[in-house]
Amino acid sequence: MSNFDQLLQDIKALNTKLHSKDFLLTWEQSTDELKQVLKVAEGLRMLRNENISTKVFDSGLGVSLFRDNSTRTRFSFTSACNMLGLAIQDLDEGKSQIAHGETVRETANMISFCADVIGIRDDMYLGYGNQYMREVGSALDFGKENGVLAQRPGMVNLQCDIDHPTQSMADLAWLIEHFGSLENLKGKKIAMTWAYSPSYGKPLSVPQGIIGLMTRFGMDVTLAHPEGYDLIPEVVETAGRQAAESGGSFTQVSTMAEAFKDADIVYPKSWAPYHVMGRRTDLLKAGDHAGLKTLEQECLAQNALHKDWHCTEEMMKHTRNGEALYMHCLPADITGVSCKEGEVTEGVFNKYLIDTYKEAGWKPYIIASMILNRRFASPDVVLENLMKKGARRVDA
Amino acid sequence: MSNFDQLLQDIKALNTKLHSKDFLLTWEQSTDELKQVLKVAEGLRMLRNENISTKVFDSGLGVSLFRDNSTRTRFSFTSACNMLGLAIQDLDEGKSQIAHGETVRETANMISFCADVIGIRDDMYLGYGNQYMREVGSALDFGKENGVLAQRPGMVNLQCDIDHPTQSMADLAWLIEHFGSLENLKGKKIAMTWAYSPSYGKPLSVPQGIIGLMTRFGMDVTLAHPEGYDLIPEVVETAGRQAAESGGSFTQVSTMAEAFKDADIVYPKSWAPYHVMGRRTDLLKAGDHAGLKTLEQECLAQNALHKDWHCTEEMMKHTRNGEALYMHCLPADITGVSCKEGEVTEGVFNKYLIDTYKEAGWKPYIIASMILNRRFASPDVVLENLMKKGARRVDA
Amino acid sequence: MSNFDQLLQDIKALNTKLHSKDFLLTWEQSTDELKQVLKVAEGLRMLRNENISTKVFDSGLGVSLFRDNSTRTRFSFTSACNMLGLAIQDLDEGKSQIAHGETVRETANMISFCADVIGIRDDMYLGYGNQYMREVGSALDFGKENGVLAQRPGMVNLQCDIDHPTQSMADLAWLIEHFGSLENLKGKKIAMTWAYSPSYGKPLSVPQGIIGLMTRFGMDVTLAHPEGYDLIPEVVETAGRQAAESGGSFTQVSTMAEAFKDADIVYPKSWAPYHVMGRRTDLLKAGDHAGLKTLEQECLAQNALHKDWHCTEEMMKHTRNGEALYMHCLPADITGVSCKEGEVTEGVFNKYLIDTYKEAGWKPYIIASMILNRRFASPDVVLENLMKKGARRVDA
Repeated sequence: MSNFDQLLQDIKALNTKLHSKDFLLTWEQSTDELKQVLKVAEGLRMLRNENISTKVFDSGLGVSLFRDNSTRTRFSFTSACNMLGLAIQDLDEGKSQIAHGETVRETANMISFCADVIGIRDDMYLGYGNQYMREVGSALDFGKENGVLAQRPGMVNLQCDIDHPTQSMADLAWLIEHFGSLENLKGKKIAMTWAYSPSYGKPLSVPQGIIGLMTRFGMDVTLAHPEGYDLIPEVVETAGRQAAESGGSFTQVSTMAEAFKDADIVYPKSWAPYHVMGRRTDLLKAGDHAGLKTLEQECLAQNALHKDWHCTEEMMKHTRNGEALYMHCLPADITGVSCKEGEVTEGVFNKYLIDTYKEAGWKPYIIASMILNRRFASPDVVLENLMKKGARRVDA
Repeated sequence: MSNFDQLLQDIKALNTKLHSKDFLLTWEQSTDELKQVLKVAEGLRMLRNENISTKVFDSGLGVSLFRDNSTRTRFSFTSACNMLGLAIQDLDEGKSQIAHGETVRETANMISFCADVIGIRDDMYLGYGNQYMREVGSALDFGKENGVLAQRPGMVNLQCDIDHPTQSMADLAWLIEHFGSLENLKGKKIAMTWAYSPSYGKPLSVPQGIIGLMTRFGMDVTLAHPEGYDLIPEVVETAGRQAAESGGSFTQVSTMAEAFKDADIVYPKSWAPYHVMGRRTDLLKAGDHAGLKTLEQECLAQNALHKDWHCTEEMMKHTRNGEALYMHCLPADITGVSCKEGEVTEGVFNKYLIDTYKEAGWKPYIIASMILNRRFASPDVVLENLMKKGARRVDA
Repeated sequence: MSNFDQLLQDIKALNTKLHSKDFLLTWEQSTDELKQVLKVAEGLRMLRNENISTKVFDSGLGVSLFRDNSTRTRFSFTSACNMLGLAIQDLDEGKSQIAHGETVRETANMISFCADVIGIRDDMYLGYGNQYMREVGSALDFGKENGVLAQRPGMVNLQCDIDHPTQSMADLAWLIEHFGSLENLKGKKIAMTWAYSPSYGKPLSVPQGIIGLMTRFGMDVTLAHPEGYDLIPEVVETAGRQAAESGGSFTQVSTMAEAFKDADIVYPKSWAPYHVMGRRTDLLKAGDHAGLKTLEQECLAQNALHKDWHCTEEMMKHTRNGEALYMHCLPADITGVSCKEGEVTEGVFNKYLIDTYKEAGWKPYIIASMILNRRFASPDVVLENLMKKGARRVDA
């Protein structure tokens, strides 16, 4: 358990304000704050793997609000709440009176009398998801300040239109596990590239989250996509600035092969162009189904021009020793498996299958860490007390 | 903590049978019983605000059955169950086999093998909601008496066609908080009035709940609505009788201005006329969609004749010093916000926004108190033991 | 409590491998294994009835996956998880990305990072339900072996196309309670018979589960159905072989009256013929709605030829002293109550109403026992420790 003691020392040495703000975009957090989320996640995982209870709440609610379908994020959030002792109550907008015109401020307070955290996924509308979370946050501050709420629930961004911090942080935790340390990632080349998929309208939050986070730690981040498949310009700018600051680099190239060249890590994934997401948002808001259909057909036709953006065994040969680590947020569009032609061949995907599963396995711990860091000013003390108490999670 | 000790003394002095009966209508409860629900709710809130665990169940289920959409009541019931240690299992009739013709008796028993409480919202059908709860209650008695159930789950009326006791009791708890004591409410004038809304078919249970409860404590209760917007006659009679008994008064007037005159508290809210709810129930049961459409149009046209039933700044000037406390069960139809023309102006609503949120904040505690009082014969001892044990709800 | 000590001794004496395999078909389990599930269920029930906590998990998830509507099985699974300390997270395929073509292996792992058990109901597709569960099981083994999962969640078959082990084991627990012991069931005649219902497509898993289980313990099992309403041939063969091995008998007859003759127990219930379930599966897979409609009409017409398969007071007179125990998995199609003409008369059903409710009441404990036996190698020690600790479930 000396690893655990070292971890506590590491956390104690960090200087953060995670306790006093919601974690909505990784690039709004200091490097120490990112490190603390990673370390606390690791500590929670150590405890659970030793069959030691990680419950810090005797009772309390975790509220989930999903504005898009989700399996893995839903289960990750539930798992995170459960390991800390919170029960889940889903805010199903279909079932609730939100549809009847309630304001955000009112709803946020009405669901929070006994809530300790609210997790929100809102990635469908460009320009709205992250903004909605901030409105909820203000509403909760308002409620706390005015004596409506006995506690200010934390908020976890479970994916918005701009960032997907629980994904990118879980990805980073996995890279640390795989390469041995955060330090070891310095100078490693990661290629975040577009890949062909027979669907359209996939959110931008994953590629944006990756370039927005991995540029913080001295990595060489390369972004590649077909012409026109741009990300939100501000996020790309942020990535560039951060790379310069961290002693790494941020490069944009125009082919998958070029991006893969000598890469240590590749992350090939489909997304919709920024301007398409904007048009789609307008059409969704207007309820213009015919327009959406037309847009979809246009985009699918456009996508089909780029089927060569395909992560094949041949393509992988461009990477360092042909052995780069393949990453994906899952589910991937696997050629001949989940679709006729997709992002990746079955051979490449299966070679890295266990890796991608392990990558996903960090998400519950990252979310639990975010909740814990938002709630407790001294998470090292919390972890230490859990270890000292040593209550068993499964008790025979 | 001497307040807490005083509270325990107060509870001990009450003489109630809450332990042995479901709480379905406030006017079926003795004054001591109502006081006990209020006091125990206050005690639970004190404990939770002191970060002391209120869990009295190590495991067990709270079953929820919502036959109408709900956000705040759903979250209140979940919060109440959670703070006592119960997990929620929703009985979703769409997903279940109830739709396949199961009898109430059978279903009630099948869901109750490990249930400690069942919360039901059934407010759509006049003459059926409360009756359905009583059928469930009989079924549970039958199961307990015949050895089918190891424990008789309590039942909480989360809104029926007649009363909305968790709302009215939360409203009363808020009035006690606001005015300092139950005693202080004596002689205060409360105006329960109809207000215009661009929708129809809103349940009668809130106005009925208010006049049915507030007449118990020596308040001057005034009811006002346009001609034809009557409540269930028996409830109105009950209100009158209770007012006489409690040393208060119950008055009916025909304009909002008259009702507001010198009022200390106003509660302007839309509802559908009693006879309309009856017709609507018949049409819903017959599945007559055309008939429902026609009825809706008739009623909306009828409502539109009464847009002057509007809680404006001008109207508020009629109240005592122009400063009556505005109440609403939320969500309100706010003119220019949630609808073009509604129950209340944005100015009045916003002036009392925090008040209405605090009003709502009592509901989880009122529900938890009802569950606890139904389960334990000596709730004062339960509260005392929780305090003595002093387990922390959030443990850093 | 000497009964409890005796129970612990009985469990200790059994030789089983329940700890290392999923419980998918009763006929894959040894007699000791079946006995252990029954005994542990009894032990859990004893503890709970003594208000002693049965929580062995401090936190952890029970995942439910229902591919068919369900009330009682859903509540039973939730109750079982809850009494052991697990929270429920439903995998709603409508809401999740499974519909988007994810593979079973991936989904099984993605939902299991913090799961201790997965309960699956998949009874709609002949030849697929049980197979699906085995695929999930393999996927979980794969995840555990490759370091993806920290623990291998157990799996509970909540009804498949072949067996309904939680139902048949609960039925057996009820028979043991009713007749005093497992030993007392030897030589008792149980009649599993088809009965008329105005619906079609009811699964085969209940009758198959009953003949597949009750032939293990020396009972005289008689199966009867109209010509053409066959069960899966392999299951019928298994029943015959088991009856011979256990010193009982397995007989097929062609009328309800013959089956009921001198029966100690009768279980009249509708099901669809084996070959119809096969055709239905093909049509469902092909999405052939017209074909399904035609098949339904054919089958309903065919069923209507057998309305005399009706459990009436007259029919019951054929049984031993006219007093056989009536069983049903519920809900039953009761003539004049839930349908015009059905499986059983109201008189017979009501005479045995409490019995059928008690029968159902074993299911939560059987499921909890399966979960506990899958997780702990020495369930007797677990039960003993729970008793010693003596934490109260409801703590006043």
